[in-house]
Amino acid sequence: MYSMLRWPLRLLTLGRSREGSTLSLAVQQPKSTFINKMDGKKALIILAPGAEEIEFTIAADVLRRAGINVTVAGLEGSEPVKCSRDVIIVPDKSLEDAVTDEVYDVIVLPGGLGGSNAMSDSKAIGELLRTQESAGRLIAAICAAPTALAKHGIATGKSLTSYPAMKSQLVDKYCYVDDQNVVHDGNLITSRGPGTAYEFALKISEQLAGTAKADEVAKAMLLTFH
Amino acid sequence: MYSMLRWPLRLLTLGRSREGSTLSLAVQQPKSTFINKMDGKKALIILAPGAEEIEFTIAADVLRRAGINVTVAGLEGSEPVKCSRDVIIVPDKSLEDAVTDEVYDVIVLPGGLGGSNAMSDSKAIGELLRTQESAGRLIAAICAAPTALAKHGIATGKSLTSYPAMKSQLVDKYCYVDDQNVVHDGNLITSRGPGTAYEFALKISEQLAGTAKADEVAKAMLLTFH
Ligand SMILES: [Cu+]
Repeated sequence: MYSMLRWPLRLLTLGRSREGSTLSLAVQQPKSTFINKMDGKKALIILAPGAEEIEFTIAADVLRRAGINVTVAGLEGSEPVKCSRDVIIVPDKSLEDAVTDEVYDVIVLPGGLGGSNAMSDSKAIGELLRTQESAGRLIAAICAAPTALAKHGIATGKSLTSYPAMKSQLVDKYCYVDDQNVVHDGNLITSRGPGTAYEFALKISEQLAGTAKADEVAKAMLLTFH
Repeated sequence: MYSMLRWPLRLLTLGRSREGSTLSLAVQQPKSTFINKMDGKKALIILAPGAEEIEFTIAADVLRRAGINVTVAGLEGSEPVKCSRDVIIVPDKSLEDAVTDEVYDVIVLPGGLGGSNAMSDSKAIGELLRTQESAGRLIAAICAAPTALAKHGIATGKSLTSYPAMKSQLVDKYCYVDDQNVVHDGNLITSRGPGTAYEFALKISEQLAGTAKADEVAKAMLLTFH
């Protein structure tokens, strides 16, 4: 019954690869696009194949609501990424491009078993996290993603939490916390799973944009943060 | 420092348009893809430009966790969709293709002002919802999306809720409920915003997959449903 309809298309250039070719995708855009407030705070969110799409999306959405300039970096390039429950998300740019001549106030690692394993196996992620830690800047990981921190030897000895099933991989290297949804120790923020992703994202927002802004964002989403 | 790296690509055909051309996108895939259990229940989630990406993603992810066969339908085609906070999501297929010779146990409308306005303006959505209502099958809408129901004259007179700011557009046609996160009246399920999206998705899951499955899904996400 819809066969007579023609859907409008608009073209948007999403990224340019190192090899010089341009990836052009037709993107359906809303009439009014949400504008980030550029208050100088920057977040890098890693999007890896098999990432937990709720944890990824809540982080990106909540941080942007808080006025933080968010870059979504595809671990393996700028192409669309299939997440853990088959939602397909397009990164803003490749990780390679995202970290060239750019520094971020926080690096966020969403969970998902596949995504976390991919980040654990990535030398680029190891190098990025070591640089971030050395500079004393914030690192945030949720669900299975703290296992990538362990793999790369990041923040060893700090207090941390994770998805409960990952505890055994973390107890040796960290002071493991079972009874908090979000654990904040110095430059490390960790959390437990999809059900704690709002608190995780709001805690990061609070650190970068302040308590009042985090509370405002929570309220607009019909949540209570404090 | 990453300029020497080369990122692996794999090609996946995402969809075939009515016009006969094939849209091919390079997609980063996890090693093991999540497999839907095919228990026969089917959900159609509408993805419109300006959709609230958290509300969309929680619905898709939670319903798939519950074993429901979810189709993500792009309102304006199968191209990537820019959501309300600039997250870009690729539909499984166009709405046009999704509804050809296919019937869904539930049609889910995520919120977001832009997405809800686009669904309100869409004759295809009006026709789809009227057919769904006439057949006595489930319709679910969250946040601003109930305004699209009002625009298309769907479920008039039923009890319903929405994002609080939309109340004035709904009180004349519906029995508006202020004090519940999810309202279920006959074949209509409605909810209030990002902060109530888990309850919304779990309520839909409960209707299609049963209480035990909804509880199991909630628990795995570290949430309590009942
Ligand atoms: Cu909304």
